[in-house]
Amino acid sequence: MARGTFVVFEGIDACGKSTQARRVAAQRGALFAFEPGDSALGAQLRRWVLDASTPMTPVTEALMMLADRSHHVATVIEPALARGSHVVADRFDASTLAYQGYGRGVDLAELAAATDLAIGRCAADLTVLIDIDIDTANERRSRNAEDRFESADAEFHERVREGYLQMARREPLRWFVVDGRGTLEDVAAIIDEQLDQLDW
Amino acid sequence: MARGTFVVFEGIDACGKSTQARRVAAQRGALFAFEPGDSALGAQLRRWVLDASTPMTPVTEALMMLADRSHHVATVIEPALARGSHVVADRFDASTLAYQGYGRGVDLAELAAATDLAIGRCAADLTVLIDIDIDTANERRSRNAEDRFESADAEFHERVREGYLQMARREPLRWFVVDGRGTLEDVAAIIDEQLDQLDW
Repeated sequence: MARGTFVVFEGIDACGKSTQARRVAAQRGALFAFEPGDSALGAQLRRWVLDASTPMTPVTEALMMLADRSHHVATVIEPALARGSHVVADRFDASTLAYQGYGRGVDLAELAAATDLAIGRCAADLTVLIDIDIDTANERRSRNAEDRFESADAEFHERVREGYLQMARREPLRWFVVDGRGTLEDVAAIIDEQLDQLDW
Repeated sequence: MARGTFVVFEGIDACGKSTQARRVAAQRGALFAFEPGDSALGAQLRRWVLDASTPMTPVTEALMMLADRSHHVATVIEPALARGSHVVADRFDASTLAYQGYGRGVDLAELAAATDLAIGRCAADLTVLIDIDIDTANERRSRNAEDRFESADAEFHERVREGYLQMARREPLRWFVVDGRGTLEDVAAIIDEQLDQLDW
Protein backbone atom coordinates (compact mmCIF):
# COMPACT_ATOMS: atom_id res chain seq x y z
CA MET A 1 0.00 0.00 0.00
CA ALA A 2 1.30 3.46 -0.88
CA ARG A 3 2.39 5.58 2.01
CA GLY A 4 0.08 8.50 2.87
CA THR A 5 0.91 12.13 2.23
CA PHE A 6 1.90 14.32 5.17
CA VAL A 7 1.08 18.03 5.04
CA VAL A 8 1.85 20.45 7.87
CA PHE A 9 0.42 23.92 8.46
CA GLU A 10 2.59 26.48 10.22
CA GLY A 11 2.51 30.17 11.08
CA ILE A 12 2.20 32.62 13.96
CA ASP A 13 -0.90 32.86 16.17
CA ALA A 14 -4.02 34.11 14.37
CA CYS A 15 -2.64 33.36 10.90
CA GLY A 16 -5.53 30.97 10.25
CA LYS A 17 -3.54 27.73 10.05
CA SER A 18 -5.73 25.68 12.39
CA THR A 19 -8.87 26.57 10.42
CA GLN A 20 -7.21 25.72 7.09
CA ALA A 21 -5.62 22.54 8.43
CA ARG A 22 -8.96 21.25 9.76
CA ARG A 23 -10.72 22.17 6.52
CA VAL A 24 -8.14 20.43 4.34
CA ALA A 25 -8.14 17.31 6.53
CA ALA A 26 -11.95 17.10 6.39
CA GLN A 27 -12.18 17.70 2.63
CA ARG A 28 -9.46 15.18 1.77
CA GLY A 29 -10.35 12.50 4.31
CA ALA A 30 -7.01 12.92 6.07
CA LEU A 31 -6.24 12.38 9.73
CA PHE A 32 -6.08 15.72 11.53
CA ALA A 33 -3.20 15.92 14.02
CA PHE A 34 -2.14 18.73 16.29
CA GLU A 35 0.67 19.53 18.68
CA PRO A 36 1.41 19.68 21.46
CA GLY A 37 -0.85 17.25 23.26
CA ASP A 38 -2.41 14.81 20.76
CA SER A 39 -1.74 11.67 22.86
CA ALA A 40 -2.08 10.69 26.53
CA LEU A 41 1.58 11.35 27.22
CA GLY A 42 1.43 14.45 25.04
CA ALA A 43 -1.59 15.86 26.88
CA GLN A 44 0.28 15.48 30.16
CA LEU A 45 3.40 17.12 28.73
CA ARG A 46 1.26 19.93 27.33
CA ARG A 47 -0.18 20.62 30.78
CA TRP A 48 3.33 20.75 32.22
CA VAL A 49 4.65 23.05 29.50
CA LEU A 50 1.68 25.41 29.76
CA ASP A 51 1.64 25.39 33.58
CA ALA A 52 3.24 28.70 34.57
CA SER A 53 3.82 27.45 38.13
CA THR A 54 6.58 25.18 36.78
CA PRO A 55 9.19 27.64 35.51
CA MET A 56 11.10 26.08 32.65
CA THR A 57 13.98 27.27 30.49
CA PRO A 58 13.42 27.53 26.71
CA VAL A 59 15.65 24.47 26.30
CA THR A 60 13.60 22.36 28.73
CA GLU A 61 10.42 23.58 27.02
CA ALA A 62 11.88 22.58 23.63
CA LEU A 63 12.92 19.12 24.88
CA MET A 64 9.47 18.53 26.39
CA MET A 65 7.88 19.53 23.08
CA LEU A 66 10.24 17.18 21.25
CA ALA A 67 9.50 14.31 23.64
CA ASP A 68 5.80 14.93 22.92
CA ARG A 69 6.49 15.06 19.18
CA SER A 70 8.51 11.84 19.10
CA HIS A 71 5.73 10.06 20.98
CA HIS A 72 3.13 11.59 18.64
CA VAL A 73 5.11 10.45 15.59
CA ALA A 74 5.58 6.92 16.92
CA THR A 75 2.00 6.37 18.11
CA VAL A 76 -0.16 8.46 15.74
CA ILE A 77 1.42 10.01 12.65
CA GLU A 78 3.80 7.30 11.41
CA PRO A 79 1.30 4.42 11.85
CA ALA A 80 -1.33 6.42 9.92
CA LEU A 81 1.05 7.24 7.05
CA ALA A 82 2.28 3.63 6.97
CA ARG A 83 -1.27 2.29 6.51
CA GLY A 84 -1.80 4.73 3.63
CA SER A 85 -3.76 7.46 5.42
CA HIS A 86 -2.98 11.08 4.65
CA VAL A 87 -2.14 13.24 7.65
CA VAL A 88 -2.64 17.00 8.03
CA ALA A 89 -0.95 18.50 11.07
CA ASP A 90 -1.46 21.82 12.80
CA ARG A 91 2.21 22.53 13.70
CA PHE A 92 5.17 20.13 13.55
CA ASP A 93 8.99 20.35 13.60
CA ALA A 94 9.19 23.91 12.22
CA SER A 95 7.23 25.23 15.21
CA THR A 96 10.01 24.19 17.58
CA LEU A 97 12.67 25.83 15.41
CA ALA A 98 10.56 28.97 14.94
CA TYR A 99 9.42 29.44 18.55
CA GLN A 100 12.21 28.04 20.74
CA GLY A 101 15.02 28.62 18.19
CA TYR A 102 14.36 31.87 16.31
CA GLY A 103 11.96 33.20 18.97
CA ARG A 104 13.71 32.32 22.23
CA GLY A 105 17.29 32.02 21.01
CA VAL A 106 17.97 28.33 21.62
CA ASP A 107 20.98 27.20 19.51
CA LEU A 108 19.52 26.42 16.08
CA ALA A 109 21.98 23.70 15.02
CA GLU A 110 21.56 21.70 18.23
CA LEU A 111 17.81 22.26 18.15
CA ALA A 112 17.63 21.07 14.53
CA ALA A 113 19.56 17.90 15.43
CA ALA A 114 17.28 17.25 18.40
CA THR A 115 14.25 17.84 16.16
CA ASP A 116 15.58 15.37 13.60
CA LEU A 117 16.06 12.88 16.43
CA ALA A 118 12.43 13.37 17.50
CA ILE A 119 10.83 12.92 14.07
CA GLY A 120 13.20 10.35 12.55
CA ARG A 121 12.26 9.76 8.92
CA CYS A 122 8.76 11.18 9.39
CA ALA A 123 9.32 14.54 7.64
CA ALA A 124 6.44 16.51 6.11
CA ASP A 125 5.98 16.16 2.35
CA LEU A 126 4.90 19.80 2.27
CA THR A 127 4.82 22.52 4.92
CA VAL A 128 2.30 25.28 4.21
CA LEU A 129 3.31 28.55 5.88
CA ILE A 130 0.41 30.96 6.26
CA ASP A 131 2.24 34.25 6.61
CA ILE A 132 0.73 37.36 8.19
CA ASP A 133 2.38 40.45 9.63
CA ILE A 134 2.16 41.23 13.35
CA ASP A 135 -0.27 44.14 12.83
CA THR A 136 -2.73 41.86 11.05
CA ALA A 137 -2.32 39.26 13.82
CA ASN A 138 -3.04 41.96 16.41
CA GLU A 139 -6.15 43.18 14.57
CA ARG A 140 -7.54 39.66 14.39
CA ARG A 141 -6.77 38.90 18.01
CA SER A 142 -8.27 42.14 19.33
CA ARG A 143 -11.50 41.40 17.48
CA ASN A 144 -12.13 38.47 19.82
CA ALA A 145 -10.63 39.66 23.08
CA GLU A 146 -8.37 42.21 24.67
CA ASP A 147 -5.28 40.18 23.96
CA ARG A 148 -3.15 42.22 21.60
CA PHE A 149 0.51 41.22 21.70
CA GLU A 150 2.41 43.44 24.14
CA SER A 151 5.50 45.04 22.59
CA ALA A 152 7.82 42.32 23.97
CA ASP A 153 5.40 39.73 22.61
CA ALA A 154 5.27 41.55 19.27
CA GLU A 155 9.07 41.43 18.95
CA PHE A 156 9.06 37.75 19.86
CA HIS A 157 6.41 36.96 17.26
CA GLU A 158 8.30 39.05 14.70
CA ARG A 159 11.36 36.81 15.25
CA VAL A 160 9.17 33.71 14.97
CA ARG A 161 7.67 35.01 11.71
CA GLU A 162 11.12 35.79 10.27
CA GLY A 163 12.32 32.33 11.30
CA TYR A 164 9.46 30.70 9.42
CA LEU A 165 10.20 32.78 6.31
CA GLN A 166 13.91 31.89 6.45
CA MET A 167 13.14 28.18 6.70
CA ALA A 168 10.74 28.46 3.75
CA ARG A 169 13.32 30.28 1.62
CA ARG A 170 15.93 27.64 2.41
CA GLU A 171 13.79 24.70 1.22
CA PRO A 172 11.47 26.08 -1.48
CA LEU A 173 10.48 22.62 -2.74
CA ARG A 174 9.27 21.49 0.66
CA TRP A 175 7.60 24.72 1.75
CA PHE A 176 4.74 26.74 0.26
CA VAL A 177 4.19 30.27 1.56
CA VAL A 178 0.74 31.78 1.25
CA ASP A 179 -0.22 35.35 2.12
CA GLY A 180 -2.69 34.91 4.97
CA ARG A 181 -4.18 38.41 4.84
CA GLY A 182 -6.91 37.50 2.34
CA THR A 183 -10.34 36.14 3.20
CA LEU A 184 -10.67 32.58 4.41
CA GLU A 185 -11.99 31.61 0.98
CA ASP A 186 -9.18 33.34 -0.92
CA VAL A 187 -6.52 31.67 1.21
CA ALA A 188 -8.28 28.31 0.90
CA ALA A 189 -8.34 28.57 -2.91
CA ILE A 190 -4.58 29.28 -3.10
CA ILE A 191 -3.80 26.42 -0.73
CA ASP A 192 -6.06 23.96 -2.55
CA GLU A 193 -4.48 24.78 -5.91
CA GLN A 194 -1.07 23.98 -4.45
CA LEU A 195 -2.26 20.83 -2.67
CA ASP A 196 -3.84 19.48 -5.87
CA GLN A 197 -0.30 19.14 -7.22
CA LEU A 198 0.58 16.63 -4.49
CA ASP A 199 0.02 12.94 -5.07
CA TRP A 200 -3.08 12.37 -2.91
CA MET B 1 33.90 33.51 43.80
CA ALA B 2 35.51 30.53 42.06
CA ARG B 3 33.17 28.21 40.27
CA GLY B 4 32.65 24.81 41.95
CA THR B 5 34.03 21.55 40.61
CA PHE B 6 31.62 19.14 38.94
CA VAL B 7 32.36 15.40 39.14
CA VAL B 8 30.09 12.73 37.65
CA PHE B 9 30.04 9.01 38.42
CA GLU B 10 28.96 6.63 35.67
CA GLY B 11 28.77 2.91 35.02
CA ILE B 12 26.37 0.00 34.59
CA ASP B 13 23.98 -1.17 37.31
CA ALA B 14 25.72 -2.65 40.38
CA CYS B 15 29.10 -1.10 39.56
CA GLY B 16 29.03 0.80 42.86
CA LYS B 17 28.83 4.32 41.48
CA SER B 18 25.97 5.53 43.69
CA THR B 19 27.81 4.42 46.83
CA GLN B 20 31.05 6.09 45.75
CA ALA B 21 29.29 9.25 44.56
CA ARG B 22 27.47 9.67 47.88
CA ARG B 23 30.64 8.98 49.83
CA VAL B 24 32.70 11.51 47.85
CA ALA B 25 29.98 14.17 48.11
CA ALA B 26 29.76 13.69 51.90
CA GLN B 27 33.53 13.69 52.46
CA ARG B 28 34.15 16.77 50.31
CA GLY B 29 31.09 18.78 51.34
CA ALA B 30 29.74 18.70 47.80
CA LEU B 31 26.12 18.76 46.70
CA PHE B 32 24.98 15.25 45.77
CA ALA B 33 22.83 15.19 42.64
CA PHE B 34 21.20 12.29 40.87
CA GLU B 35 19.23 11.62 37.71
CA PRO B 36 16.59 11.16 36.66
CA GLY B 37 14.18 12.79 39.07
CA ASP B 38 16.07 15.27 41.29
CA SER B 39 13.48 18.10 40.91
CA ALA B 40 9.68 18.38 41.00
CA LEU B 41 9.44 18.29 37.22
CA GLY B 42 12.13 15.62 37.10
CA ALA B 43 10.33 13.40 39.61
CA GLN B 44 7.20 13.56 37.46
CA LEU B 45 9.18 12.78 34.30
CA ARG B 46 10.88 9.90 36.08
CA ARG B 47 7.50 8.40 36.99
CA TRP B 48 6.42 8.67 33.36
CA VAL B 49 9.60 7.14 32.01
CA LEU B 50 9.51 4.26 34.49
CA ASP B 51 5.77 3.65 34.08
CA ALA B 52 5.56 0.58 31.86
CA SER B 53 1.90 1.28 31.09
CA THR B 54 3.03 4.21 28.93
CA PRO B 55 4.97 2.51 26.12
CA MET B 56 7.63 4.85 24.85
CA THR B 57 10.21 4.59 22.08
CA PRO B 58 13.90 4.88 23.00
CA VAL B 59 13.92 8.32 21.38
CA THR B 60 11.00 9.56 23.45
CA GLU B 61 12.64 8.10 26.55
CA ALA B 62 15.89 9.90 25.69
CA LEU B 63 14.12 13.22 25.10
CA MET B 64 12.24 12.92 28.39
CA MET B 65 15.53 12.21 30.17
CA LEU B 66 17.10 15.22 28.45
CA ALA B 67 14.16 17.47 29.38
CA ASP B 68 14.67 16.31 32.98
CA ARG B 69 18.42 16.94 32.72
CA SER B 70 18.08 20.44 31.28
CA HIS B 71 15.68 21.34 34.09
CA HIS B 72 18.03 19.77 36.64
CA VAL B 73 20.99 21.75 35.25
CA ALA B 74 19.07 25.04 35.22
CA THR B 75 17.51 24.71 38.67
CA VAL B 76 20.02 22.67 40.71
CA ILE B 77 23.48 21.98 39.26
CA GLU B 78 24.39 25.25 37.52
CA PRO B 79 23.22 27.51 40.40
CA ALA B 80 25.25 25.40 42.87
CA LEU B 81 28.42 25.53 40.73
CA ALA B 82 27.94 29.27 40.14
CA ARG B 83 27.86 29.98 43.88
CA GLY B 84 31.07 27.99 44.35
CA SER B 85 29.65 24.69 45.59
CA HIS B 86 31.13 21.46 44.31
CA VAL B 87 28.66 19.02 42.79
CA VAL B 88 28.93 15.22 42.61
CA ALA B 89 26.37 13.58 40.34
CA ASP B 90 25.22 9.99 40.10
CA ARG B 91 24.79 9.82 36.27
CA PHE B 92 24.76 12.71 33.81
CA ASP B 93 25.07 13.19 30.03
CA ALA B 94 27.09 10.02 29.41
CA SER B 95 24.23 7.88 30.75
CA THR B 96 21.96 9.01 27.92
CA LEU B 97 24.60 8.26 25.30
CA ALA B 98 25.46 4.89 26.90
CA TYR B 99 21.91 3.63 27.53
CA GLN B 100 19.76 5.15 24.77
CA GLY B 101 22.59 5.53 22.23
CA TYR B 102 24.97 2.56 22.53
CA GLY B 103 22.40 0.40 24.36
CA ARG B 104 19.20 1.03 22.41
CA GLY B 105 20.63 2.18 19.11
CA VAL B 106 19.42 5.78 18.98
CA ASP B 107 21.53 7.77 16.48
CA LEU B 108 24.62 8.84 18.43
CA ALA B 109 25.37 12.09 16.59
CA GLU B 110 21.83 13.40 16.96
CA LEU B 111 21.70 12.21 20.55
CA ALA B 112 25.01 13.93 21.34
CA ALA B 113 23.71 17.20 19.87
CA ALA B 114 20.49 16.92 21.86
CA THR B 115 22.53 16.16 24.99
CA ASP B 116 24.70 19.24 24.40
CA LEU B 117 21.50 21.26 24.02
CA ALA B 118 20.25 19.94 27.37
CA ILE B 119 23.39 20.66 29.41
CA GLY B 120 24.61 23.83 27.69
CA ARG B 121 27.99 24.86 29.13
CA CYS B 122 27.50 22.74 32.25
CA ALA B 123 29.88 19.87 31.35
CA ALA B 124 31.48 17.68 34.01
CA ASP B 125 35.06 18.56 34.96
CA LEU B 126 35.70 14.85 35.42
CA THR B 127 33.61 11.76 34.75
CA VAL B 128 34.60 8.73 36.84
CA LEU B 129 33.65 5.48 35.12
CA ILE B 130 33.48 2.54 37.51
CA ASP B 131 33.88 -0.36 35.14
CA ILE B 132 32.76 -3.90 35.91
CA ASP B 133 32.04 -6.84 33.62
CA ILE B 134 28.54 -8.24 33.28
CA ASP B 135 29.37 -11.43 35.24
CA THR B 136 30.49 -9.38 38.24
CA ALA B 137 27.34 -7.23 37.94
CA ASN B 138 25.24 -10.40 37.90
CA GLU B 139 26.99 -11.85 40.96
CA ARG B 140 26.39 -8.66 42.92
CA ARG B 141 22.77 -8.38 41.87
CA SER B 142 21.96 -12.00 42.66
CA ARG B 143 23.34 -11.58 46.18
CA ASN B 144 20.46 -9.26 46.99
CA ALA B 145 17.61 -10.68 44.95
CA GLU B 146 16.72 -13.00 42.11
CA ASP B 147 17.30 -10.33 39.52
CA ARG B 148 20.19 -11.54 37.35
CA PHE B 149 20.20 -9.91 33.93
CA GLU B 150 18.39 -12.13 31.43
CA SER B 151 20.47 -12.85 28.32
CA ALA B 152 18.82 -10.03 26.35
CA ASP B 153 19.49 -7.74 29.28
CA ALA B 154 23.07 -8.96 29.48
CA GLU B 155 23.68 -8.11 25.81
CA PHE B 156 22.12 -4.70 26.34
CA HIS B 157 24.30 -4.00 29.36
CA GLU B 158 27.36 -5.24 27.46
CA ARG B 159 26.66 -2.60 24.77
CA VAL B 160 26.18 0.03 27.47
CA ARG B 161 29.49 -0.95 29.09
CA GLU B 162 31.32 -0.83 25.76
CA GLY B 163 29.78 2.57 25.04
CA TYR B 164 31.10 3.93 28.32
CA LEU B 165 34.58 2.57 27.61
CA GLN B 166 34.60 4.09 24.11
CA MET B 167 33.62 7.51 25.46
CA ALA B 168 36.34 7.28 28.11
CA ARG B 169 38.99 6.34 25.51
CA ARG B 170 37.95 9.24 23.30
CA GLU B 171 38.40 11.89 26.02
CA PRO B 172 41.09 10.59 28.37
CA LEU B 173 41.62 13.97 30.05
CA ARG B 174 37.96 14.29 31.04
CA TRP B 175 37.37 10.64 32.04
CA PHE B 176 38.94 8.41 34.66
CA VAL B 177 38.27 4.67 34.46
CA VAL B 178 38.56 2.63 37.65
CA ASP B 179 38.27 -1.14 37.88
CA GLY B 180 35.17 -1.64 40.03
CA ARG B 181 35.84 -5.28 40.94
CA GLY B 182 37.85 -4.47 44.05
CA THR B 183 36.48 -3.93 47.54
CA LEU B 184 34.62 -0.74 48.30
CA GLU B 185 37.69 0.52 50.16
CA ASP B 186 40.10 -0.33 47.34
CA VAL B 187 37.96 1.42 44.75
CA ALA B 188 37.49 4.40 47.08
CA ALA B 189 41.26 4.77 47.52
CA ILE B 190 41.91 4.80 43.77
CA ILE B 191 39.12 7.34 43.20
CA ASP B 192 40.28 9.59 46.03
CA GLU B 193 43.84 9.65 44.75
CA GLN B 194 42.56 10.80 41.36
CA LEU B 195 40.14 13.35 42.83
CA ASP B 196 42.89 14.89 44.96
CA GLN B 197 44.46 16.09 41.71
CA LEU B 198 41.41 18.22 40.97
CA ASP B 199 41.25 21.81 42.20
CA TRP B 200 38.78 21.41 45.09
